Amino acid sequence: MSAKLSGSERAQALTGLPGWSEVAGRDAIAKSFKFKDFPTAFAFMTHVALVAEKMDHHPEWSNVWNRVDITLSTHDSGGVSAKDVALAQAIERAAKG
Amino acid sequence: MSAKLSGSERAQALTGLPGWSEVAGRDAIAKSFKFKDFPTAFAFMTHVALVAEKMDHHPEWSNVWNRVDITLSTHDSGGVSAKDVALAQAIERAAKG
Repeated sequence: MSAKLSGSERAQALTGLPGWSEVAGRDAIAKSFKFKDFPTAFAFMTHVALVAEKMDHHPEWSNVWNRVDITLSTHDSGGVSAKDVALAQAIERAAKG
Repeated sequence: MSAKLSGSERAQALTGLPGWSEVAGRDAIAKSFKFKDFPTAFAFMTHVALVAEKMDHHPEWSNVWNRVDITLSTHDSGGVSAKDVALAQAIERAAKG
C-alpha cells in the first residue's frame, strides 16, 4: 500500500506535472488530453494501459473521439499517493510519444 | 449522415440489444460491461476501438479497472441513429470475444 500524500506533498508533486490539477470534491488529480484524432487518442490509451498494468495501478479515464480525460487516485490509500504521481509521470511520457 | 431514430424505432432496436438502455436526459443508449480484470477490459476496448474506427463512428466511454461504460449517440443527428445500433451490435460481438 502506498501512503496518501499530505496537502503540501501533493501540491509539490503537481508543480512537476504541468496540466494536472486537483479534482474538486475528491482527493484525486486529473488532466484532459487532446489528440488530432481517435486513432492517435487510442494509441495513447494503449500505451498508458500497458504502463498502468505493469505498475499494477490503473487510471479512471474516459474518451470521446480525440479527447482523453484521466483521473488518478489510490483507492487503498483514500487519496493521491506516490503511485498516482508515478503513473502521471509515465502518462506524460506516453503523451509525448 | 444517419437519420435520428424515432422513439418507437429506438425502442424496437433496444429489444435486440440486451443490457442496453436509454440514457436519462439524453437521446442516447448506454451499457455497462464488466470483465474479470483490467487486461480483459482493455482488450475489449481495443477490439471496439478498431471496429469503431472502421465504422467511422465512435463511442463515448469510460473505464475503471474491470468496468467499461459505453454511451452511443450520433452528434450530427442529434440522437440515436442506425449507426449507434450497428455499433452496439458490433460491441456485443466484441464482448463475446
